[in-house]
Amino acid sequence: MKIPSKYIENAVNQISSLPGIGKRTALRLVLQLMSRSREEIEDFSNAFTLMKDNVKKCNTCGNVSDVHVCTICSNTSRDKSIICVVEDIRDILAIEATESYKGIYHVLGGIISPMDGIGPNDLNISSLVDRAQQESVKEIIFALSATMEGDTTNFFLYRKLRSLNISISSLSRGVSVGAELQYADEITLSRSLLNRQPFEV
Amino acid sequence: MKIPSKYIENAVNQISSLPGIGKRTALRLVLQLMSRSREEIEDFSNAFTLMKDNVKKCNTCGNVSDVHVCTICSNTSRDKSIICVVEDIRDILAIEATESYKGIYHVLGGIISPMDGIGPNDLNISSLVDRAQQESVKEIIFALSATMEGDTTNFFLYRKLRSLNISISSLSRGVSVGAELQYADEITLSRSLLNRQPFEV
Repeated sequence: MKIPSKYIENAVNQISSLPGIGKRTALRLVLQLMSRSREEIEDFSNAFTLMKDNVKKCNTCGNVSDVHVCTICSNTSRDKSIICVVEDIRDILAIEATESYKGIYHVLGGIISPMDGIGPNDLNISSLVDRAQQESVKEIIFALSATMEGDTTNFFLYRKLRSLNISISSLSRGVSVGAELQYADEITLSRSLLNRQPFEV
Repeated sequence: MKIPSKYIENAVNQISSLPGIGKRTALRLVLQLMSRSREEIEDFSNAFTLMKDNVKKCNTCGNVSDVHVCTICSNTSRDKSIICVVEDIRDILAIEATESYKGIYHVLGGIISPMDGIGPNDLNISSLVDRAQQESVKEIIFALSATMEGDTTNFFLYRKLRSLNISISSLSRGVSVGAELQYADEITLSRSLLNRQPFEV
């Protein structure tokens, strides 16, 4: 694709540097931007530098925030005795959307993945161990991806935390609610058989 | 989705204002941007304002360009007697990629689409009629989408141009090269039967 303007080409390269966006899609997006007014494009551009300059990480949990302690950590009605360990802030948003968790979080910033060159030292693990040693903490929930990398990270964290006098749990695995059994994959189905629950009415 | 930072929320809103990008995808892209350095984000942001400030429209054909006459119009080896009418510059890129067209172009800037409130006056039609009246022009090719809007625009242009002494053609419609006949849709198949070509060896 030979774009007849180096400025458009540059914009296309920038947009297609985002994950999952190819050159063709990028060109479509860039041409749509081109049709906007100068002010609208300025607002668009400024959004990213403003974000970089102003967004902070919560000193406690690593969640993003506009202040130094995030709204979840500073909320007095949240249960500070339970810490839910997640990979990144999208997982916090997903769990918050369920409205069924009232504890606080700890953002690892990734999971152990030797293939991507991410080892334990690249993650916020030591700060999790520090937090877990506080007397107020009673339980830690591992809420990482149900992948091999997630399981590896769970095991690594478990070894770091097992000597402490706190309960450690992880999200239950099983057949999705609403799913038909015949379409569940074999590993999920066998796991949900192994972890069967007492029937409650 | 309640994002815990108004700066991130603003960036997500800007990215999801692009066509075909939802909030969830936008958040993924924004978090990826967040992980970049200040300089990289500045380069990203500046690309769009630089583009808006510097990209020009070719005075002749309406193609985008860094100068006032685009590289195709200023290329002396192109055949100035054939003008190919396209909807937007992406179509120019697609036709140029075939390397089988040596004429010049005319960018309409859209097609007639009453549903989207686009009428003939919103398109670069009068400049096309002016160009077609130049003595050097021998043929005009309609290369618009094979949709009802494209056909409507073709017909409108045809009525504007038919009194001039030039040949008017449009792209052939038919079964795609490489397609299996049983999967071709009925309208395409019946059109390719009607427009059957003398067999050449």
